[in-house]
Amino acid sequence: MNRLPHPDPISGASYSAAELMPDDATLVLLDQRQLPRAQVYLEIRDVESAARAIREMVVRGAPAIGITAAYAMVLAARRARGDVLTELERARALLALQRPTAVNLSWAADRMLSHARSLGARSAEDVAGALAEHARALHRDDVAANRRMGQLGAARVPDGAVVLTHCNAGALATGGYGTALGVIRAAVESGKTVRVLADETRPYLQGSRLTAWELMQDGIAVELIPDASAGWFFSRNQIDLAVVGADRIARNGDVANKIGTYSVACLARQHGRPFYVAAPWSTVDATTPSGEQITIEERSGDELVKLGGLPLAPAGVGVRNPAFDVTPARLVSAIFSERGVVEPVSESAILALEAARGGPGV
Amino acid sequence: MNRLPHPDPISGASYSAAELMPDDATLVLLDQRQLPRAQVYLEIRDVESAARAIREMVVRGAPAIGITAAYAMVLAARRARGDVLTELERARALLALQRPTAVNLSWAADRMLSHARSLGARSAEDVAGALAEHARALHRDDVAANRRMGQLGAARVPDGAVVLTHCNAGALATGGYGTALGVIRAAVESGKTVRVLADETRPYLQGSRLTAWELMQDGIAVELIPDASAGWFFSRNQIDLAVVGADRIARNGDVANKIGTYSVACLARQHGRPFYVAAPWSTVDATTPSGEQITIEERSGDELVKLGGLPLAPAGVGVRNPAFDVTPARLVSAIFSERGVVEPVSESAILALEAARGGPGV
Repeated sequence: MNRLPHPDPISGASYSAAELMPDDATLVLLDQRQLPRAQVYLEIRDVESAARAIREMVVRGAPAIGITAAYAMVLAARRARGDVLTELERARALLALQRPTAVNLSWAADRMLSHARSLGARSAEDVAGALAEHARALHRDDVAANRRMGQLGAARVPDGAVVLTHCNAGALATGGYGTALGVIRAAVESGKTVRVLADETRPYLQGSRLTAWELMQDGIAVELIPDASAGWFFSRNQIDLAVVGADRIARNGDVANKIGTYSVACLARQHGRPFYVAAPWSTVDATTPSGEQITIEERSGDELVKLGGLPLAPAGVGVRNPAFDVTPARLVSAIFSERGVVEPVSESAILALEAARGGPGV
Repeated sequence: MNRLPHPDPISGASYSAAELMPDDATLVLLDQRQLPRAQVYLEIRDVESAARAIREMVVRGAPAIGITAAYAMVLAARRARGDVLTELERARALLALQRPTAVNLSWAADRMLSHARSLGARSAEDVAGALAEHARALHRDDVAANRRMGQLGAARVPDGAVVLTHCNAGALATGGYGTALGVIRAAVESGKTVRVLADETRPYLQGSRLTAWELMQDGIAVELIPDASAGWFFSRNQIDLAVVGADRIARNGDVANKIGTYSVACLARQHGRPFYVAAPWSTVDATTPSGEQITIEERSGDELVKLGGLPLAPAGVGVRNPAFDVTPARLVSAIFSERGVVEPVSESAILALEAARGGPGV
């Protein structure tokens, strides 16, 4: 299929990373592995399949996998045969295992579990119905958060700016609209001219496959560049600022994000350009003191040495393939979130906003 | 074919980027586009085919394309129908057009033309014979230069070091042995334990396809990494030094090399690690005052958006694909050459070695 099967996707866009169908029984995921070649939606009916889809990167991007996990908890409740809370605890544990770095995954599953617990003794069907409502609210909140941080970030994007981004922190990585790409969209919507340089983002090519696709859908000017060329474009004064998303933000403001983000931050600093992070507050993990404590997922070397079945390197070569890196707070010019702008980035600034709305709700 | 057809390759290795067959009529090029999948040698019998092979990157790497150009001049002399010097001038112009950044290409063709001119009035056959001898001497000198700079560089490689390299500056990029990889080979030959992290080097994947292949042939420990991850490994103290080759070194010590080199140099500096360049003196272009004057080749965007016919990005996406960048002298810790070590890298240090051996000879 090529068309989003959901009659009323939450972001209002013509595509969506994840939607729960109105019957609450089917999670629809855009198979991002097939983009930009084909728009194929997969129908997921149980938590095990949802977990596999997260692991295999059918859906990726910290907020989008959070929303997927929330919807997957609905499926777990619907299919519960024994005690529904026990089943939800099992589902939560399974989901959290799939990608260790992004905090939104366990954050969303935890929220669903807490909500289920708060309901008291109810039938699995009732719990599933309440969770579906809760998950859709979480999805709506994510889109609203993106729009809010987009506006805050857009104020820092000069008219005529060339903006570097890395990986995909767009509609495809979130409930819709996007974090880093939300900043760019909001700047464009406010009437500014913006041109994007998109790192292709090896090995998974989220820049080539997803960011370029998204921006072209919206008619926003985008050029792909090899990851390693960003330094050169900075040195030629061809980049005005960099903005990226985040997979986890520690209490001190250290930012875990797609591998290569740290190099972008170093190069931005070295060339006197701002390096911004845009992320919903659900990405902030105030229980993790600093980036040192963030688990960095290492993925299979196959991502680097094969492409579409084609071998790119000699058989048996060693590979290091960390999926994320950590950018220290001191290299981050500001963090845009729906709770406000964290600037300068420090533990106290983060704790102030963490307290501002009382815990992990949007 | 899988075996180097030359009975006696100049470097003594079991493979070679370029060799002139004993009959002086056939240039044999290893088709590096097919590595590591297959070792295929192409037989080239005229300068037009040699020029095309350079353009299409059958052979690449500044010293290797210099040697190829020298041998191509032999073919041009052999096939001259009119005045042999006129034909050689035409061949020189054609060759120099193919890749604008690497200076070795025009340097080698110029040397051959000068040598032909110095012979006085001779038959095309005599000129071809003399040029064949001259080209083979240039090839032998290149291998000797690599071994010498390798020894000088190896002294800076600590036992147990992890060395980052970018692109392929190995036997495949030279007459044999290699410049940056020559430093690594010499360190290993001196009994040191060295581990290599090789940037895969998008878009052309010289790291994955060529550097990994070469080092595995020699049993030197190598791991591939995504280009953008180098910063992360620096920050984790997992890289002790970086060494790369060069395509052109300006009089002030600015270094043009494969795109991404500049980012490596920035990251090495930011993490307090040495960044070395290894190159034969033929790479030094004392007529170019600084990197500002070096022409940077922009190659087709197809290199970035297609791989083995597979589309990696949406059709019609814009691409920036500069093939090289320029690293300013201030970021280069030292240059290893067969004339000695340039350190600190400055115009005066370069001019001193330029004078040392009187002009552009090895």
